[in-house]
Amino acid sequence: MEGQHKYVLDESEMPTHWYNIVADMPVPPPPPLHPGTREPVGPDDLAPLFPPELIAQEVTGERYVEIPGQVLDVYKQWRPSPLFRARRLEERLGTPARIYYKYEGVSPAGSHKTNTAVPQVYYNAQHGVTRLTTETGAGQWGTALAYACALFGLDCEVWQVGTSFDTKPQRRTLIEVFGAQVHRSPSRLTESGRAFPEDHPGTLGLAISEAVEVAAQDEATKYSLGSVLNHVLLHQTIIGEEALRQLAKAGEDRVDLVVGCAGGGSNFAGLAFPFLREKLTGAQDPTILAVEPTSCPSLTRGEYRYDFGDTAGLTPLLKMYTLGHGFVPSKIHAGGLRYHGMAPLVSHAVDQGWIQATALHQRECFEAAVEFGRVEGVVPAPESSHALAQVRREALACRESGEEKVIVAGLSGHGLLELGAYADFLADHLEDDPLSEDALVAALAEVPVL
Amino acid sequence: MEGQHKYVLDESEMPTHWYNIVADMPVPPPPPLHPGTREPVGPDDLAPLFPPELIAQEVTGERYVEIPGQVLDVYKQWRPSPLFRARRLEERLGTPARIYYKYEGVSPAGSHKTNTAVPQVYYNAQHGVTRLTTETGAGQWGTALAYACALFGLDCEVWQVGTSFDTKPQRRTLIEVFGAQVHRSPSRLTESGRAFPEDHPGTLGLAISEAVEVAAQDEATKYSLGSVLNHVLLHQTIIGEEALRQLAKAGEDRVDLVVGCAGGGSNFAGLAFPFLREKLTGAQDPTILAVEPTSCPSLTRGEYRYDFGDTAGLTPLLKMYTLGHGFVPSKIHAGGLRYHGMAPLVSHAVDQGWIQATALHQRECFEAAVEFGRVEGVVPAPESSHALAQVRREALACRESGEEKVIVAGLSGHGLLELGAYADFLADHLEDDPLSEDALVAALAEVPVL
Repeated sequence: MEGQHKYVLDESEMPTHWYNIVADMPVPPPPPLHPGTREPVGPDDLAPLFPPELIAQEVTGERYVEIPGQVLDVYKQWRPSPLFRARRLEERLGTPARIYYKYEGVSPAGSHKTNTAVPQVYYNAQHGVTRLTTETGAGQWGTALAYACALFGLDCEVWQVGTSFDTKPQRRTLIEVFGAQVHRSPSRLTESGRAFPEDHPGTLGLAISEAVEVAAQDEATKYSLGSVLNHVLLHQTIIGEEALRQLAKAGEDRVDLVVGCAGGGSNFAGLAFPFLREKLTGAQDPTILAVEPTSCPSLTRGEYRYDFGDTAGLTPLLKMYTLGHGFVPSKIHAGGLRYHGMAPLVSHAVDQGWIQATALHQRECFEAAVEFGRVEGVVPAPESSHALAQVRREALACRESGEEKVIVAGLSGHGLLELGAYADFLADHLEDDPLSEDALVAALAEVPVL
Repeated sequence: MEGQHKYVLDESEMPTHWYNIVADMPVPPPPPLHPGTREPVGPDDLAPLFPPELIAQEVTGERYVEIPGQVLDVYKQWRPSPLFRARRLEERLGTPARIYYKYEGVSPAGSHKTNTAVPQVYYNAQHGVTRLTTETGAGQWGTALAYACALFGLDCEVWQVGTSFDTKPQRRTLIEVFGAQVHRSPSRLTESGRAFPEDHPGTLGLAISEAVEVAAQDEATKYSLGSVLNHVLLHQTIIGEEALRQLAKAGEDRVDLVVGCAGGGSNFAGLAFPFLREKLTGAQDPTILAVEPTSCPSLTRGEYRYDFGDTAGLTPLLKMYTLGHGFVPSKIHAGGLRYHGMAPLVSHAVDQGWIQATALHQRECFEAAVEFGRVEGVVPAPESSHALAQVRREALACRESGEEKVIVAGLSGHGLLELGAYADFLADHLEDDPLSEDALVAALAEVPVL
């Protein structure tokens, strides 16, 4: 039996800056627009929701943004996260490809989400904010924000998407262990929520509307978003920056394929953008591939248009691949991928042809995840399983072609709080996830025409 | 906010040998006896259950046993495990004590159990064994053995204690994801199981009987035990060996207190025995303290006598602190601590006065665990929470006395599959755990008189 290999970094080798892809984009991304005036939004428009540093990071053209010392101190609890060479998986698949995966499940919340939760809470705490509101889909983001709020002494209120709240009581408990308060969305606490029946399964877009609505009402309360926005993606780039250093240690100065799952886009961008820098600057030429679920395929079936980030239309209009802000995806287990849109920076990169996208059904993803778990000893989050299923396809293609491709996958989190989904899969009760074509047409018809 | 500090080791600094406390015991431990003849058991008596290397390790007087290269390769997936300085906890408790914890929850199964599962499966695989049977209480051990069997290509069958099987479906699923088969104990598959009603809550001792009975019937099937025996404790000593090296890096050449939870004794011994070596050889003089639950208090309320390791009386007679092999503890959440006996080597050390013991109720343990989780970002296993509650007591005593004690605690695993227990605690539904005095008297009356 061939052993895995783990590539670690000393804390002294840890990146000290986040990387901003905007600085290297030869074509700049389109700006967000004010939902009322439809003019580009300025810093003042965002001030009710975010502290000044995060607004500055949202619009900066700086190539590198320094990570504050206190944030680095917290990061060091679990970072640098390990990069593994998946030798046992390679052996099992009989592939000449060399497969690496960057594992973010070692964080306190079990996923990459803490990479942005910690700096977001840190900057809010600096400005006297005492409460943060947010949404959570899979529960990963709510957990991460609750953890970070506990560290810095802020109150935290989380609107958990109804279907996630109903089927994942453990996730709610974990958020509560970290001291936050959890509401099922749609709740009766907001106008946005009350517009839907109480037993509605909810969507990420709707939970965002509820959290934004509450934050806007109170000076000492701000809102925190777990994906989509530029500053969130910025914070996640520490993943790819570490991975590049670890690959160098592994003797790989060239990568053929970078694969990540994409819901709102932050996990994907965190791994991919440092590699995209290498591509745009000509240092390397990897294929960079986003994998989404067939039931919520914004990049592969959506339209690249200005749309709202939330269901109720409270956020700025973002130029992005969207299924329409009213689109309700089916109840797949990868709750973190059930978002109608895609981060504007990822959308722009796809539109420019720098990044590719594909979509997979959930059964194939769970099959790959179980196989991966048995050889690598890690049970992947259902979201991450989308990346692994694509890796499996690529590795088997290399077996046919004989190509020794170097593949880097993002393993965004563990699935220890999603074992109910695995039980369904093992009992052959897991259904594939149809995309409702009619619902898609109807939702796209509601996207504002500018 | 003061940051934590994580002390890591390079793989090159990792221990290459397990440590055998027997070599340094000035008084040797009493031998196990054959259940029929009541003479000391020889290697031949154990051959139906274990491969030769494990039998040799069970009786060796060698001080250090080399870790096989293939086992080290697998260990490196998660080892060396981190040692944290719990600065945020110290700050919260306002204590001058310096608190360190050694965190084993980073392993693929989420606990220390993989440290022995991997070598046990490795040695069995070397001898052509194709199937292993075992018991599991909390589910940690079953998960670890399933993981290791998947790596080395062995079949694995797990008898899960009834109350654990009923209340922790996620744990069962995780074991199944790793490819093993799970039976509720008492099962209808064994004579030992059929002696009890099908809805009996079960005990570790009974699950052991079932797994031993099946293994003894088949040449290619052997049995694997997750605690209690000398070779199991031996494998766990890598925990304490690493901790000593990490403490040296932290500038601590002297420890005042070593604390671990104790069920069967392997987690506790794994951390404690290398420190006990320092104590017995005069290099340091720490207090070494085992913490057990009030509802299953073998060390603090049991008798130091020869008793069976299992309920049905199939195992050798072990000289140990025991509550009686028929004792059925109440259904506390720390399922891994629900064992009627205690490892003979730990029992001998307590009898000789080298190690102390204390017992705590579960509500105090969960209170300490939630506090710990909020400041340190790790949700402890209910078992580990016993160590943390004792640390809390000690740290608060230091606040009163002003003593700057150096405390090292074992955090044997995470509690992400035990969130139901945390939900009960947060909702104030968690009851304390009475010890039935009548049941104890009755069970002790059944211990064989030699």
